[in-house]
Amino acid sequence: MEFSSKLLENAVNEMSQLPGIGKRTALRLVLHLLRQPKEQTKGLSNALERMRNDIKFCESCNNISDREICEICSNPHRDNDIICVVEDIRDIMAIENTSSFKGLYHVLGGKISPIDGVGPHDLNIEPLVDKVKQGNVKELIFALSSTMEGDTTNFYIYRQIQDYNVFTTTIARGISVGDEIEYADEITLGRSIVNRIPFEISLKS
Amino acid sequence: MEFSSKLLENAVNEMSQLPGIGKRTALRLVLHLLRQPKEQTKGLSNALERMRNDIKFCESCNNISDREICEICSNPHRDNDIICVVEDIRDIMAIENTSSFKGLYHVLGGKISPIDGVGPHDLNIEPLVDKVKQGNVKELIFALSSTMEGDTTNFYIYRQIQDYNVFTTTIARGISVGDEIEYADEITLGRSIVNRIPFEISLKS
Repeated sequence: MEFSSKLLENAVNEMSQLPGIGKRTALRLVLHLLRQPKEQTKGLSNALERMRNDIKFCESCNNISDREICEICSNPHRDNDIICVVEDIRDIMAIENTSSFKGLYHVLGGKISPIDGVGPHDLNIEPLVDKVKQGNVKELIFALSSTMEGDTTNFYIYRQIQDYNVFTTTIARGISVGDEIEYADEITLGRSIVNRIPFEISLKS
Repeated sequence: MEFSSKLLENAVNEMSQLPGIGKRTALRLVLHLLRQPKEQTKGLSNALERMRNDIKFCESCNNISDREICEICSNPHRDNDIICVVEDIRDIMAIENTSSFKGLYHVLGGKISPIDGVGPHDLNIEPLVDKVKQGNVKELIFALSSTMEGDTTNFYIYRQIQDYNVFTTTIARGISVGDEIEYADEITLGRSIVNRIPFEISLKS
């Protein structure tokens, strides 16, 4: 791509470093900013820089927060002996949206994935094991993606805490609500039969 | 969407004002920046602000430029009596890529589109008509999109310059090179038959 302006070229190059944004999309976005008032570009760049420089991670759960301890961890109405283990903040947002969980979270920051060069020591696993060792955790819920990497990460953590007195669970895998049985993939369908639950319990949820 | 941090929320809101970027995509992009070194965010926001504040538009053709007169308009090797009328800078980049045009450009900045509230006076049409009136333009090539809005814009400009001594052309519409006749849409195919060209001429291009 040949540009008639160095300033434009720089902006497009920086923009296209974002994931999923190619050169053409970057050019479209940058030209859009040029057509808008200067305040919009100023607002965007200020918001990004302030976020990057000033954002904090909760000292307890590693969630993104503006304070040392995040709102969830500092909320006295939540059960602090149940911890839900998640990959990143988007999972917390999704689970919070369901209003089905009143415990605390622990954000790993990813999952073990040798192919991407992510080992256990790149993740926030040690502080989680420490919490369990201190004996204040009654239940640990694994809520990682149902992939090879997610399962590996679950198992890695489980091995380190299995000797301590903690009840370990994983979120249910099964047919999505509203899905037709005939179109379900066979692994999910198989698991949902093996892990069937008493009908009376299903009535309550 | 509920955020655990105001800084994060601001960044996502600003990012999602870009066209085609929803809240979820904005969150993904912003979280990506958080995982990268601070320099990347600084580079992006600086490049955007510098571009927005310092970029110039060529005084002659309205192309984006770092100087008062852009590289194309100030190039003595180009024919300054042939002007190609385009919508925006992306069209210039596309035509320059073909190396088939050695004249100058004139950037309108859009096309007449009542539905989007864009009238003739929102576009850079007057300076173009002035150029023609001064009598230095031999040929004017319309290279706007082949849509209702593009055709309207072409016709609006044509009406204002038709009494002056200028040869007015429009880029050829027809079957794309490599396309199968049977799959071509009927309007394009019809036009390509009406506007057929001598075979000897087609051999030369």
